[in-house]
Amino acid sequence: MNFGTEEYKERIRKTKESMAKKGIEVLLITDPANINYLSGYDAWSFYVHQMLVVIDDEDQPFWIGRNQDANGARMTTWLFHENIFPYPDEYVQSTTLHPMKYVAEILKQIGQDKRTIGVEMENYYFTARCYEALKCGLPNATISDGSLLVNWLRLIKSDVEIEMIKRAAKISEIAMTKALEMVDVGVRECDVAAEIFRSQIRGTNEFGGDYPAIVPLLPSGERSATPHLTWTDDPYESGDIVTIELAGCYKRYHSPLARTISLGKPADKIQILSDVVVEGLNACLEMIKPGIASEEIESTFKQTISKFGLTKDSRLGYSMGLNYPPDWGEHTVSIRSGDKTILKPNMTFHLIPGIWLDDYGFEASESIRITENGCETFASLPRQLFVKEQFLPLINSNDFPSDIGEIEEV
Amino acid sequence: MNFGTEEYKERIRKTKESMAKKGIEVLLITDPANINYLSGYDAWSFYVHQMLVVIDDEDQPFWIGRNQDANGARMTTWLFHENIFPYPDEYVQSTTLHPMKYVAEILKQIGQDKRTIGVEMENYYFTARCYEALKCGLPNATISDGSLLVNWLRLIKSDVEIEMIKRAAKISEIAMTKALEMVDVGVRECDVAAEIFRSQIRGTNEFGGDYPAIVPLLPSGERSATPHLTWTDDPYESGDIVTIELAGCYKRYHSPLARTISLGKPADKIQILSDVVVEGLNACLEMIKPGIASEEIESTFKQTISKFGLTKDSRLGYSMGLNYPPDWGEHTVSIRSGDKTILKPNMTFHLIPGIWLDDYGFEASESIRITENGCETFASLPRQLFVKEQFLPLINSNDFPSDIGEIEEV
Repeated sequence: MNFGTEEYKERIRKTKESMAKKGIEVLLITDPANINYLSGYDAWSFYVHQMLVVIDDEDQPFWIGRNQDANGARMTTWLFHENIFPYPDEYVQSTTLHPMKYVAEILKQIGQDKRTIGVEMENYYFTARCYEALKCGLPNATISDGSLLVNWLRLIKSDVEIEMIKRAAKISEIAMTKALEMVDVGVRECDVAAEIFRSQIRGTNEFGGDYPAIVPLLPSGERSATPHLTWTDDPYESGDIVTIELAGCYKRYHSPLARTISLGKPADKIQILSDVVVEGLNACLEMIKPGIASEEIESTFKQTISKFGLTKDSRLGYSMGLNYPPDWGEHTVSIRSGDKTILKPNMTFHLIPGIWLDDYGFEASESIRITENGCETFASLPRQLFVKEQFLPLINSNDFPSDIGEIEEV
Repeated sequence: MNFGTEEYKERIRKTKESMAKKGIEVLLITDPANINYLSGYDAWSFYVHQMLVVIDDEDQPFWIGRNQDANGARMTTWLFHENIFPYPDEYVQSTTLHPMKYVAEILKQIGQDKRTIGVEMENYYFTARCYEALKCGLPNATISDGSLLVNWLRLIKSDVEIEMIKRAAKISEIAMTKALEMVDVGVRECDVAAEIFRSQIRGTNEFGGDYPAIVPLLPSGERSATPHLTWTDDPYESGDIVTIELAGCYKRYHSPLARTISLGKPADKIQILSDVVVEGLNACLEMIKPGIASEEIESTFKQTISKFGLTKDSRLGYSMGLNYPPDWGEHTVSIRSGDKTILKPNMTFHLIPGIWLDDYGFEASESIRITENGCETFASLPRQLFVKEQFLPLINSNDFPSDIGEIEEV
């Protein structure tokens, strides 16, 4: 476990407090990050149904999952072993049985089937069928929407969580530096991706890395006109723009980071786009502080780039931290017009002002922490369009770091 | 795109045929593997809602997704650009708007809102809220269960798909060999995981690797008593049992592989467990052929290991191939009692007879293709408990391959 039992108990207390406000007596948690947050449970078992059950008048939650994963629950959580309920394997990906029927049976057995039961309606791991099977199995319960209840509790990080994100950021710097070193004419995209992965998982000599919730995204050339393509096994060509988005991850805590590199002198329009986006990002980092609303950040960005005739339709960023695939975002705060969330110290965001045009794009991002008086970036790497004009020999890519230049201070 | 347009059209034809049998007129596909199978679309954009719409009397499907991903859809699919419908960014992870409302509007506009509309009820990317929002937005439609409709079409692979899995298998051999070389007393688990990732993504000089749908799973010591733990940054200790499950992946096609290694001479009970499981696996590989039922494989395995007093409660394997996180299994055939699927040539399975006891486990698996007369394994690596008795110097791990021994033939 990454935190002491007292920390988990405090999180459970806050969860129950929020449940009470929403009139939820029993909360069924299927988001792997929320399960981890409240119990410590950590395994790649979320591809089968599993959940944590928080009951208003029980000290400990219950874990319900596949039989072969129960040992993992015993090893990685603070729960008493009698609170771990394994379900038989015939429920796994069956066309006739559904784990939520098993869950309904358990809830009956422990006398919780006539209560107001909250479910995470919008989580990847609570499918439409989960909902139907649960309603069918619990005819006397009132099913209620408990979406994002725990996610909102995760918004402000403890100091220990901040330390974990700082470690993740260290890994993100190493991985991004490696990527910027390696991307070059004639190098295969997959070979760069491989070194990014290796850096992400090795971490440092002091601490190892965990798998990020999203794989490295590094579309090149025309593919940079869209942010979520991965890589090919084609070699980079002279003139390519490559956008790179990745995260370091430490014990499921993320610090995402995006940069862009041009192989060869970029066209003026690309250099201008880059300069404007970076100016917009810097303007945001200058103005962010506790007490302002999330949407004000976006407004600052939009104003800055509009001076150059640019617009951005997509959100500027989002709250991030602890997570599992397929997303490192927390699905609570989005930095965009209409989001009135007031910033507070130790909230953590990924600000990613990417702009994608018809045949190229530019991204430069920062993961930030709201401090007492402003904000600070987790990683330290220059914010700029990196340009590689003299192509390096393919074998020796160790000469590049000087190209990265000095670290800008926020 | 990995296949020619004609191949995609043929898949659409089969999809419509299956829709007709089930009385589905419009199929909303949210499973990223099914979207890829029918359109070629490939991006890490499934963390926001997206779908492919197959309509019984339209030649081409429609893609509906986030605006910034639309360029990716234009680049990676065979669809006409007018069949690509981007939704505005304010629908992304919003607490007030839902992309399925947008989808409902599109369906109204194209006159499809009063039809029988199939949805994938049990897919990770079709949440309970998706279902509710869709029902709410389409009051005149009949919503019907289209779960696994496309998955079942994926069961028998084309020869080109088999070639892709063979490439994935080549990568799985390289990654597993690297892992078996590296696992050693004093080596950090994360450093082994890092080299596995690197091998998976680099692939070979001829072709690069893609990200597998599941990260390497390599629990050690007592943690080997459960299969889905990942890694720590602790070093391995003498006496550790390490189970390693990983896959090679080529253009989203997987070939999973599991092996187990003991650091030091294993206790007799572990050696016996390993020998029995391998004997059971070999017995299965001997008997598998077209025409038998899936459940007969498991029955052979159970009979073989029962001679030694062993039982296995979890399924023996499952259909696999094309997929995205969080699972490389196809969620159709499970090799277990009750599964009556008759085996046919070019079905592909992962047979993973892992057994997990209270404080240790053993896994040895094979990915297989059903041939005309029997079956063949995709990878070639000895099936045995690997034992490292003489610990190697930490820096030079290149001397190990001779320990891996000769390749067994099936």
